[in-house]
Amino acid sequence: MAVALRTVAVVGVGLIGGSFALAARRAGGVGEIVGVGRSRPNLERAKALRVIDRDAGLAEAVAAADLVFLAMPVGATGAVLDALAPHLAPDAVVTDAGSTKRDVVDAARAALGSRFPRFVPGHPIAGAEQSGVEAARAELFQGKRTVLTPLPETDPRASETVRELWRACGAEVHEMTPESHDQVFATVSHLPHLLAFALVYDVASHEAAELLFDYAASGFRDFTRIASSHPEMWRDICLANRTALLAELTRFESVLGEARRLLEARDAAGLERLFEGARRARNEWLARR
Amino acid sequence: MAVALRTVAVVGVGLIGGSFALAARRAGGVGEIVGVGRSRPNLERAKALRVIDRDAGLAEAVAAADLVFLAMPVGATGAVLDALAPHLAPDAVVTDAGSTKRDVVDAARAALGSRFPRFVPGHPIAGAEQSGVEAARAELFQGKRTVLTPLPETDPRASETVRELWRACGAEVHEMTPESHDQVFATVSHLPHLLAFALVYDVASHEAAELLFDYAASGFRDFTRIASSHPEMWRDICLANRTALLAELTRFESVLGEARRLLEARDAAGLERLFEGARRARNEWLARR
Repeated sequence: MAVALRTVAVVGVGLIGGSFALAARRAGGVGEIVGVGRSRPNLERAKALRVIDRDAGLAEAVAAADLVFLAMPVGATGAVLDALAPHLAPDAVVTDAGSTKRDVVDAARAALGSRFPRFVPGHPIAGAEQSGVEAARAELFQGKRTVLTPLPETDPRASETVRELWRACGAEVHEMTPESHDQVFATVSHLPHLLAFALVYDVASHEAAELLFDYAASGFRDFTRIASSHPEMWRDICLANRTALLAELTRFESVLGEARRLLEARDAAGLERLFEGARRARNEWLARR
Repeated sequence: MAVALRTVAVVGVGLIGGSFALAARRAGGVGEIVGVGRSRPNLERAKALRVIDRDAGLAEAVAAADLVFLAMPVGATGAVLDALAPHLAPDAVVTDAGSTKRDVVDAARAALGSRFPRFVPGHPIAGAEQSGVEAARAELFQGKRTVLTPLPETDPRASETVRELWRACGAEVHEMTPESHDQVFATVSHLPHLLAFALVYDVASHEAAELLFDYAASGFRDFTRIASSHPEMWRDICLANRTALLAELTRFESVLGEARRLLEARDAAGLERLFEGARRARNEWLARR
């Protein structure tokens, strides 16, 4: 690839951090990959799977790194940035893979001070309901989008390094503001996750839950796939983006209220219009993809 | 198979009716399959695809049939039963594939009168978001459940014929009351469909809809798969089962209201508990399947 990095520190070696390590190594141009994490067994697995070359404490890993890649639940990002800031090498680039961007940018600005221009906020739009390094694979980002949300003060060379890295990992790189990013993903990702979690919780809390699950079929399975996602990660995302998410929830509740009124009024034409509008929009989206 | 039927009339030759025709023919024991439908081009395709042997008007097809299989949107079932009742052969069995059962049972009782004991209400738990005879395939019911909801007055020999037919099509046959059936499917099928339709409608009605869809990824695709389902069919299901569906919607709205309160209060532990409860319940369900 177009960039050469001696040492990359991956902080949080789970599905995303592990897949990034595998993809960056396969792309070439990366010397050593050092993993940092809070779970000793996970780091051992990451070494056994050759996802990372070695592990180290945060300070040591960061001091040696040309690039620091943060891939932990977004709620932990601020504390990690605070802890790593004093140890950063002079020209190191820092980037992240968090699913929310305004909170991460605020935390990075506060933690990094004069080094903030070397921070490039990022979000790979890839993932799975699995988590942990065992689920990591080099192809995870292939053909997927990665959104970068650089700020006016972000160093263009730092952005370019991160952009090149993602391209080398197979991703299509897009840019938007942190605000747009959080709005867009509140609608197309965070709200659907909240609804899927809520529906499964609802079914499971029925007295007849066992019978109900017994008759749940493939429609239910696909609708609720994202409810098998990582609870801690999604707790952090929902809290970090709560303002946009609450606004989207309000919008959704009003559409659902409209569906309720149509049902109560036995308005067949109105219901069919709503369903037909949804089907058409989804099928057009699928055709464009 | 254990039953031998000279002539089967399939009324509504779409995904379900067509797949039933293909599966029953492959199982053997069925002579001729006559299709009835409101769309001439669809009937021509069904003949070209060898799903049916010939087509006929409702009266003629029913008069010749040992078994009549109804597979149309549930809202049309009453009118079709009224129209076919006078033409039924003396020993004919009538069954259906409707996704709701109380309304179909009421309609059959009213339409068939003294012939009602030969009506066996059924619901194959299989399907796809595709519709139309082109999507039909003989394997659709393989390993899937079919629920029969016979009444106390249902002729056991009629039930047995229908049961054998479904087994021959590869389905696992279960029985429950029409009331239980409609309760169970309001929760695990009808409500998720309503939510998926509502979410896509919501996203599509945003000013920035195009940008939003642009960033929608595989989680959104799977969550909304069922929003590509047949609008007319789902309009009828939601209206036919509106009482149970409205009750489930109220339950769901209260879980969603609880999620909103947790978000507003920034209750991290409470949110994680809800997400974790959902994930555990779903993963246990997947493990049992």
